[in-house]
Amino acid sequence: MITVDEAFARIIANKIDLPVTEIALDEAVGKVLQEPVYADRDFPPYHRVTMDGIAIRYETYKAGEDTFQIEGLQLAGAPAQKLTNADGCLEVMTGAILPQNTDTVIRYEDVSITERRGKRYAHILAAPKMRLLNVHQQGFDRRANDLLIPEGTVLSPAEIAVAATVGKSSLKVTQVPRVAIISTGDELVDVTQTPLPHQIRKSNGYMLQAAMREQGITADLFHLVDDKPLLLQELQKLINQYNVLVLSGGVSKGKADFIPEVLRELGVQQLFHEVAQRPGKPFWFGKHAAGPVVFALPGNPVSTFVCYYKYVQPWLWTVLGASASWTMQASLTTEVTFNPKLTYFLPVKVFVTSTGLWRAQPVSIGGSGDFAALMTADGFLELPPDQTKFSAGESFPIICFRRFF
Amino acid sequence: MITVDEAFARIIANKIDLPVTEIALDEAVGKVLQEPVYADRDFPPYHRVTMDGIAIRYETYKAGEDTFQIEGLQLAGAPAQKLTNADGCLEVMTGAILPQNTDTVIRYEDVSITERRGKRYAHILAAPKMRLLNVHQQGFDRRANDLLIPEGTVLSPAEIAVAATVGKSSLKVTQVPRVAIISTGDELVDVTQTPLPHQIRKSNGYMLQAAMREQGITADLFHLVDDKPLLLQELQKLINQYNVLVLSGGVSKGKADFIPEVLRELGVQQLFHEVAQRPGKPFWFGKHAAGPVVFALPGNPVSTFVCYYKYVQPWLWTVLGASASWTMQASLTTEVTFNPKLTYFLPVKVFVTSTGLWRAQPVSIGGSGDFAALMTADGFLELPPDQTKFSAGESFPIICFRRFF
Repeated sequence: MITVDEAFARIIANKIDLPVTEIALDEAVGKVLQEPVYADRDFPPYHRVTMDGIAIRYETYKAGEDTFQIEGLQLAGAPAQKLTNADGCLEVMTGAILPQNTDTVIRYEDVSITERRGKRYAHILAAPKMRLLNVHQQGFDRRANDLLIPEGTVLSPAEIAVAATVGKSSLKVTQVPRVAIISTGDELVDVTQTPLPHQIRKSNGYMLQAAMREQGITADLFHLVDDKPLLLQELQKLINQYNVLVLSGGVSKGKADFIPEVLRELGVQQLFHEVAQRPGKPFWFGKHAAGPVVFALPGNPVSTFVCYYKYVQPWLWTVLGASASWTMQASLTTEVTFNPKLTYFLPVKVFVTSTGLWRAQPVSIGGSGDFAALMTADGFLELPPDQTKFSAGESFPIICFRRFF
Repeated sequence: MITVDEAFARIIANKIDLPVTEIALDEAVGKVLQEPVYADRDFPPYHRVTMDGIAIRYETYKAGEDTFQIEGLQLAGAPAQKLTNADGCLEVMTGAILPQNTDTVIRYEDVSITERRGKRYAHILAAPKMRLLNVHQQGFDRRANDLLIPEGTVLSPAEIAVAATVGKSSLKVTQVPRVAIISTGDELVDVTQTPLPHQIRKSNGYMLQAAMREQGITADLFHLVDDKPLLLQELQKLINQYNVLVLSGGVSKGKADFIPEVLRELGVQQLFHEVAQRPGKPFWFGKHAAGPVVFALPGNPVSTFVCYYKYVQPWLWTVLGASASWTMQASLTTEVTFNPKLTYFLPVKVFVTSTGLWRAQPVSIGGSGDFAALMTADGFLELPPDQTKFSAGESFPIICFRRFF
């Protein structure tokens, strides 16, 4: 039996190589970028007007002129016009290129416009503080060829906008792995079936599939009964076809728990079996020489859940090439006692205080089979094995399975 | 000009009705549930064995017997067997139904098994503390007909598992609205085009589309140039076809900013124009008598971004029927001064301390056009208008556009 930290380290150390693929920009959000994105030109690409108003030569104003004849109108999207007279001005619209021979924009609020003999004049009411006022200068934010988005970024809508601006209609991202989710157990019937008294419907497969869907991965579902020859045959096929196998059930020491021996017989090297944690102790992990990684999770729903979020999800982000990792922390609202020398994943509800502190309130749960209790939880607080009493106010890492929007 | 709080309240008060639809369970994660989900039978549905071991009658042990002849094996997924002799036992596997005439499970670790004359006996080494030890009792977690998932729940993988267990192969959820995203502005060219010096590529549309995609909404993209007759004609079509119009650009007071007047002429009732905030002040909001709601966001990318996350996203969750709302808070790492009497949406990077406190570090930004700066930000801290100095350590609401996994 190994510790949670050791199990995590062994899992993260066993990566798989995934090809890079090119996808359309409108499908790229949430994917992991596998190319650096550079500025194709300056940001902004031209001296950009930031207020509706008039554009003047600052020098003319400084020389004492405060009324400027309006020569024309510079709209956004139109090529740059040219100011003809040093004591003239052009009306300019937000987003427009600054007209040639002008360098300062005075917003409409700070001018009064009058008309005399068919000519229009702008009289400046509030002195411009400086040259280039209300001008977003070319290259002020970024220079052409600057790195904008590094490889390994999980693409948010902000990166999608930047990629569009530099003309990337598609992006190189890590291709998601082919994942097979396999639930085992003779007691399981399909969601559409009515179970007999000693049977239950499959749920872990749907849960794992939903969790991966949130990560942009479409996994295939399988169910295998506890029959050793059949398991050998079917798992061999799946090893040949998939990059990742996530099993649930069949890893304890029961008479029908064939999974560890079947996997070993199929050439999957066992990297550990049993982790000093509750729930989820019988967790088995291995890697096949031909490539596939196998997570064999305990079949109790809460155990499956904890193992997925603690181990499988971060491993998936790692193999997808994400450069960042995240550790959330939360402090206990109440004292908790847990005596076994095991890491305890305590189901909790999260509250955020007005100061921005995450607080974790334990959710009462009937055991690792009581997944209905998860309806009132948001995640699991990871309580370390070298402690038995966990005080109110003490903070620990938290794994969340709900999103806060 | 109205306050941010007033703008938010007016937006949330203007809902649209969306039909309920039935979707397959494997597509339901992230959707908003529109039916209560009840337990179809007890949870667990039978006295469920939680450890591999032997099942005995507790009374027999209490009466002094500590060695039990093994009568057989109860596997998970098999109908309940029956203990024949009160001083016998059955081997039982995790997940199995508890055999008839037994009530207590002793795990293998606490028994020694011996064989004598072809018969097998289990000798109990550690006294069971109570009846029903290692038995997850029928109905212990939930009773048949108990409410498991209320309407209005945003479905996480945990709810998907529970729905599967009670036999829901499909779920009633709110149908996502038909959303049109319309960018306006003559300076905009397509992502695949090479812009002229005074032009830029469209980016807001892709950003908004990506943000909605994360919310499970597939929006259609449009671009309209600043031409009033054309805007009248095309927006009329979109009003007829969509539930929600999200525009970007054309809402300031420039010569080519036709959007507010065009919308009014098309019968969209203006509910506000201009909000006391930076960035995003020219934000326009209205509702058409025929149903559609129109968000006309300012075209500067950072303004569009802020307005989307502050207003449009929570409104979408509301019309989708989500019962919960979330307010995250974070405390400033450093003092910030902002003099205008406006709500200031400060771009920040988030750090989580070891005690679980969210800290917000301001990101230097060149203005509302500098969306490349968002690459280093995670969200916006909402600084209220009635304050000009914001101290290090002070906490404010935060809107995040990145997910922390």
